[in-house]
Amino acid sequence: MLKYILNDQIIDQDKAFVHVSDLALLRGYGVFDFFRLVGLKPLYFNDHIERFFNSADTLRLKCPVGRKRLKSLILEIIEANQIEHSGIRIVLTGGESTTGYSIGEPTLFVINESINPLPEYHFTQGIKLITHEYLRELPDVKSINYLMGIYKLPEIKEKGALDLLFHWGGKISEVTRSNFFIIDPNDKIVTAGEGVLRGVNRKHVISMARENFNVEERDMFVHELKNAEEAFITGTTKKVMPVYQIDDLVIGDGKPGPITSKLQKLYDDYIDAYIKQQPE
Amino acid sequence: MLKYILNDQIIDQDKAFVHVSDLALLRGYGVFDFFRLVGLKPLYFNDHIERFFNSADTLRLKCPVGRKRLKSLILEIIEANQIEHSGIRIVLTGGESTTGYSIGEPTLFVINESINPLPEYHFTQGIKLITHEYLRELPDVKSINYLMGIYKLPEIKEKGALDLLFHWGGKISEVTRSNFFIIDPNDKIVTAGEGVLRGVNRKHVISMARENFNVEERDMFVHELKNAEEAFITGTTKKVMPVYQIDDLVIGDGKPGPITSKLQKLYDDYIDAYIKQQPE
Repeated sequence: MLKYILNDQIIDQDKAFVHVSDLALLRGYGVFDFFRLVGLKPLYFNDHIERFFNSADTLRLKCPVGRKRLKSLILEIIEANQIEHSGIRIVLTGGESTTGYSIGEPTLFVINESINPLPEYHFTQGIKLITHEYLRELPDVKSINYLMGIYKLPEIKEKGALDLLFHWGGKISEVTRSNFFIIDPNDKIVTAGEGVLRGVNRKHVISMARENFNVEERDMFVHELKNAEEAFITGTTKKVMPVYQIDDLVIGDGKPGPITSKLQKLYDDYIDAYIKQQPE
Repeated sequence: MLKYILNDQIIDQDKAFVHVSDLALLRGYGVFDFFRLVGLKPLYFNDHIERFFNSADTLRLKCPVGRKRLKSLILEIIEANQIEHSGIRIVLTGGESTTGYSIGEPTLFVINESINPLPEYHFTQGIKLITHEYLRELPDVKSINYLMGIYKLPEIKEKGALDLLFHWGGKISEVTRSNFFIIDPNDKIVTAGEGVLRGVNRKHVISMARENFNVEERDMFVHELKNAEEAFITGTTKKVMPVYQIDDLVIGDGKPGPITSKLQKLYDDYIDAYIKQQPE
């Protein structure tokens, strides 16, 4: 039986329940974070823990345990479960609400879940995105609201795409669960600077890429797509993943470009090096 | 012990739990509806049941019980709980998800909850709203996503307001949990025709008001507010509630106007008559 965390306790997976009066169930009010294990080592553990507590603060949710205790509980369930290359999902809800609208004592739960590996050809051939006009509420907060992304899944599948690329008022923001980058005609790597979730992989890819390339975090416009030489997304399971098409627009020559391929290689090495530095 | 409904069973309140792998907890994906009891009789029972199943259909959520069975279970818990003038909240979640993103077998639960009565002066003196630039996703669907409304509660309270009035691109849509109406300088009752949740009370108030007034369902613009003679909101617990101020703009002479007051009286009678027609 897998071990999960509920509030400040480690419990069996089949005992991990939340009462129906919780504000996450009644009003979709909650935050989360998600990271993966390389072998059994957390990737970017501190980055995710920090972002999780920041999201919680913004939504006025007090976590029942502090950073140190949360990290220690997570390490305990990783050790108990022994699922290599799995994911850790931390969720903090609005808590049991007396009025159905006010914040209560937040419920914390942590799930250790298998990750279905993405098909290898997504990394070697790239993926397609479809654009969607949409303004995310509170983009800085990793809230649990994914209504639009899940609502649109049948359309995404029908069009042979992997996900939605959001834009609003002519500006491109991000993909439902990833950050989005282009290589502009001057070989600059460009990504939206504001109005997006600060992806942990986004941060590490930018930091790594700056050693070899020019990277600009700034407003990115829909009209720039047609001149983009390459495009890619970043994320926990996507790492660096090439984008070969957006709606009907083929990017570059429809294959992963040289800079994206270079970044993929560099980023795999970067993650290897990062993990080697972590304690056993 | 209060009786709730979980899927197709009536259970005790303290047994009503949802597993942490449910898509409502992981991704805020779910729909709900809410109505109140007058005495022990459901108000607009069929309207709410129909809207609930329509919301569920749009989000591709299959309710574990059909309309007839759901209504019969709800009547059973009303009879068992005997809480006069309480509320019935029906929630249908995305269900336990194997991937953390795909829809599973939806979980249905129904809560019978006390309603904290709104202060009488809200009805006699009216309320204040603050505007917020916001475009609701899938406004026709009564989804559980109330992130923005709850996030903004401290600001709403600080400004002495009751709720947010949403507008986007110069058009007014609705209040977080109510529909919004103005009386224009020609004594026409105006409310947004599209891009809003089709409130059940909105429908009944419009139908009732049409017997005595001109009612227009059409695009309503922010610039119309300054010439509005009166304003009010409609909802399950608000019935017809006057609005005396929006941000710094005082509506009319800052008191409930004659048409709103007339509608309040008519609507109380309308509800009385509606309830008298329902079977014991």
